[in-house]
Amino acid sequence: MRTTAFHLVTRKETPQDAEIISHQLMIRTGMIRKLGAGLYTWAPLGLKVLQKIENIIREEMNAAGALEMLMPAVQPKELWQETGRIEDFGGQLLAIHDRAERDYFFGPTHEEVITDFVRNEVNSYKQLPINFYQIQTKFRDEIRPRFGVMRSREFIMKDAYSFHLNHESLVETYEKMKLAYTNIISRIGLDFRCVLADSGAIGGSGSQEFHVIADSGEDAIMYSETGEYAANLEKCEAVGLLDSRAAATAEIEKIHTPEQKTIDSVAAFLQVDKTQTIKTLLVAGVDEPVALVVRGDHSLNEVKANNLASVASPLRMLDDDEIKAVAGCDAGSIGVKGFKGHVVVDRTVANMSDFICGANENDYHFTGVNWDRDASFDEIQDIRDAQVGDPSPDGVGTLNVARGIEVGHIFQLGNKYSKAMNAVVLNEQGKSQAMEMGCYGMGVTRMVAAAIEQNHDDKGIIWPANIAPFAVAILPMNYQKSERVRRTADELYESLTSQGIEVILDDRKVRPGFMMSDFELLGIPHQVIIGDRALDENEVEYRNRTDMESIRVSRDTINDFLAEQIKA
Amino acid sequence: MRTTAFHLVTRKETPQDAEIISHQLMIRTGMIRKLGAGLYTWAPLGLKVLQKIENIIREEMNAAGALEMLMPAVQPKELWQETGRIEDFGGQLLAIHDRAERDYFFGPTHEEVITDFVRNEVNSYKQLPINFYQIQTKFRDEIRPRFGVMRSREFIMKDAYSFHLNHESLVETYEKMKLAYTNIISRIGLDFRCVLADSGAIGGSGSQEFHVIADSGEDAIMYSETGEYAANLEKCEAVGLLDSRAAATAEIEKIHTPEQKTIDSVAAFLQVDKTQTIKTLLVAGVDEPVALVVRGDHSLNEVKANNLASVASPLRMLDDDEIKAVAGCDAGSIGVKGFKGHVVVDRTVANMSDFICGANENDYHFTGVNWDRDASFDEIQDIRDAQVGDPSPDGVGTLNVARGIEVGHIFQLGNKYSKAMNAVVLNEQGKSQAMEMGCYGMGVTRMVAAAIEQNHDDKGIIWPANIAPFAVAILPMNYQKSERVRRTADELYESLTSQGIEVILDDRKVRPGFMMSDFELLGIPHQVIIGDRALDENEVEYRNRTDMESIRVSRDTINDFLAEQIKA
Repeated sequence: MRTTAFHLVTRKETPQDAEIISHQLMIRTGMIRKLGAGLYTWAPLGLKVLQKIENIIREEMNAAGALEMLMPAVQPKELWQETGRIEDFGGQLLAIHDRAERDYFFGPTHEEVITDFVRNEVNSYKQLPINFYQIQTKFRDEIRPRFGVMRSREFIMKDAYSFHLNHESLVETYEKMKLAYTNIISRIGLDFRCVLADSGAIGGSGSQEFHVIADSGEDAIMYSETGEYAANLEKCEAVGLLDSRAAATAEIEKIHTPEQKTIDSVAAFLQVDKTQTIKTLLVAGVDEPVALVVRGDHSLNEVKANNLASVASPLRMLDDDEIKAVAGCDAGSIGVKGFKGHVVVDRTVANMSDFICGANENDYHFTGVNWDRDASFDEIQDIRDAQVGDPSPDGVGTLNVARGIEVGHIFQLGNKYSKAMNAVVLNEQGKSQAMEMGCYGMGVTRMVAAAIEQNHDDKGIIWPANIAPFAVAILPMNYQKSERVRRTADELYESLTSQGIEVILDDRKVRPGFMMSDFELLGIPHQVIIGDRALDENEVEYRNRTDMESIRVSRDTINDFLAEQIKA
Repeated sequence: MRTTAFHLVTRKETPQDAEIISHQLMIRTGMIRKLGAGLYTWAPLGLKVLQKIENIIREEMNAAGALEMLMPAVQPKELWQETGRIEDFGGQLLAIHDRAERDYFFGPTHEEVITDFVRNEVNSYKQLPINFYQIQTKFRDEIRPRFGVMRSREFIMKDAYSFHLNHESLVETYEKMKLAYTNIISRIGLDFRCVLADSGAIGGSGSQEFHVIADSGEDAIMYSETGEYAANLEKCEAVGLLDSRAAATAEIEKIHTPEQKTIDSVAAFLQVDKTQTIKTLLVAGVDEPVALVVRGDHSLNEVKANNLASVASPLRMLDDDEIKAVAGCDAGSIGVKGFKGHVVVDRTVANMSDFICGANENDYHFTGVNWDRDASFDEIQDIRDAQVGDPSPDGVGTLNVARGIEVGHIFQLGNKYSKAMNAVVLNEQGKSQAMEMGCYGMGVTRMVAAAIEQNHDDKGIIWPANIAPFAVAILPMNYQKSERVRRTADELYESLTSQGIEVILDDRKVRPGFMMSDFELLGIPHQVIIGDRALDENEVEYRNRTDMESIRVSRDTINDFLAEQIKA
């Protein structure tokens, strides 16, 4: 492709609404343009990257035995009434009424439509297992669309849905999908982790997320530094840090702690480490208020708390008046001694002794508190966030944290949808049975942004080889006037193109510095600069976008040299 | 692909709402399934065909220098207010309101969005010409969706939009697109015609439609049997059939023609040929009622009539009361003698003499009417439908008619959109100038249906080679039990697959007759039947879906034989 036959419109300015680097670079390179809130046009440059990702996804999904199909974007509301998910999705569902006043949604996901398709198409166990996927434009009416295509309203998703006679078959396909996702993101060339995840509103028994590692990631990923374990912070198991409870050595004592309302200030005031304190949080319970107790230096994990049987879902912290009524004091002074209500302690807290807690009386704390002797609890649960330095839950190594961008999520759904929609098959015994189901999502447009978040420097994008819009950029200095430069550039262009290498030749009439910084910004992996000075010595200049070191290569061998570099 | 690893669900029954053969066959083969009115899911079998068509389109559009991009499906209403097209599209526009109560449409076409994109991206003549395209899901809220994907509401379209400094550049790209369309439909393997067309609601100066020829086509295509000329009936020029006006030979006479209200009955009653009569139709005019006069055996072309300067647009026939007031009689007796109003005659009518017309008095006609002597007209225009046997307007051959399915439409839009939306560039003189614009649509999902309408027999589909879902079907008789059959089938499958040939091997446990009729229905071009009887003689059976004649081929040479057949 020659630049003059392409559409290349770069910008020097960073748009005001672009908070993250991928959004900034996608606008500056002209990959995308904003049409409206959360709506983006993919210019030819951006679409080239998007399609390379789509093709990798398609190849790996096909290789894993999934069958591509395409469902309508517009979905009848009736299907969503069958599963009762309209409330779960709430305002994210974009409602549509047609000329006949029938109700539809612009599909945000397709569990209902595929389950309807399958219940009409599949009636025997002999047709199972089967795994369908599509690559499709979806819409979620985000309250606050932002970060460009990272959190847009219209976006492209690869969604797959598998159907099974039993759980074993589901697990088998689930593992195949996990491997396919691993292959996809590896081929795209990104550093990622597959982590245990909470199933959230989609439901089901088990799920894992795929995160592209990047400093700007919205999610915290806990992983074992030396082992295999990795989990979303929401889901990461936090082990008990004390193997057993030491015997009490201190007497309980009530201390006046005026104005000390946080763990930090209480510990400082009493000159003790925060690990000697506990933090008591009051939430609404199913039957009675529940006290959730974590060590002073730990933080409550709200997803874990929400999943507790004794706690009302969705999780709700008691307000100041409720706290006063339940504990007899303000939030800063709640404690476990004498607390009337259900007490759930974190695993670590259960083995603490001689600890400090609020006295359920404003401006007072107890020191030297010990379980059984001074206070009691009803349950021991994992209710805290894991933190850096914790032992990994699988026993291998200690945990570290990384930031991740979620690009994929795979779920074992079980029969949630098939039961609600009566998607049944006859089993080998001729009996009707609800199918087991899995679903597997991958953000295609988001993957482009994630790739940039992970691969850029202060000059621009550094494309991984397999998704670069072009493999090679030929940058001729003075293409318009130097016959020799033009001939060399054209010959190299023809030669590389005929080998199936994707090349962009910049034949614009622009200043060398402008051209160079444009292609630094665009991040084309291999750049060949052709100028008269080097040609005097029968050489051209080569730069790799990763290190940007300039080397001279003979004009006679540049073709082979490039082929080598591209293969490497 | 093995059938058991694929999703193949054929049906014997024709669905009740499937009026045309493509719709019936697409349902029976399981290519598509209905989700709602005008909403279809593309099952893996159907999507394979669709994607082959998409890829051919993509390759030819790229080769013609068009750049692929992707615009949002959801379009802000404000853009449509700029061009004032909301009324033109009317109820077909699917309105959407988001959670912030802003108004959008699910895009039925993208002239507004691309013009907005280009006015922000292109500001110099140096960036022109440029031609963008996308392959995208669109929505048109048809009042009566029917014919399966032929007239669905959600559909896939390839839409391209070109921008130019001047009309010459527009014409150049328009011709390139015409060639690209010709290449695309030729490669898909369909018999088609490129015809002159009316520009309709899209607007602009010139346009051509691409029609796939099929008996079930909704459109009449007039074409020269021996020449190049072809046009949509709406647009086809109808030449004057009389070179000059013969001298009057008869006296005018008023004849009582009781109850004779149609041309047929009047001609029969008077025992003359219909070519001696004229038909006068009254329509609303810009200033006064207009009489449109065609020969008795001709039919009025409403599109041509609507385009007349003297006629009010949209065309409206006068009702009975209006006719009475204007002509003094009922519709069956209107004539040109004494008619008070604007008279437009067809070219042929202008040269008629001694003709018969209504007397503007119920139950009376005039015979022996002659222009000038007895009546007069204000304009001679082409206002009739061309008909079979007419001389071709380009002077080469005579016209015949074919039925066509419109799959493409290319337009020279001029500056209609660029002026309305202020899409300007600086020209070579540094002056601001509205861009010239072309647009080029192609129905992708509809192309699949059109291909079937043209290529089927009473057993099922007969796929053109380049869009067949599979090139070869291997049909083993008794695959489960005959070790020899299975080995032969598997070996052939592996061998063909390794050569990059797309093969489906039917490894289902079904009766031979069932399998054979399934694959007749599916229309796979090359079918190899493997059974013990032929294997006894070291042979297999080959059938081509076109002629269905069965021949024996040696097992040793079947591979090469098939490769030959596929190439042919």
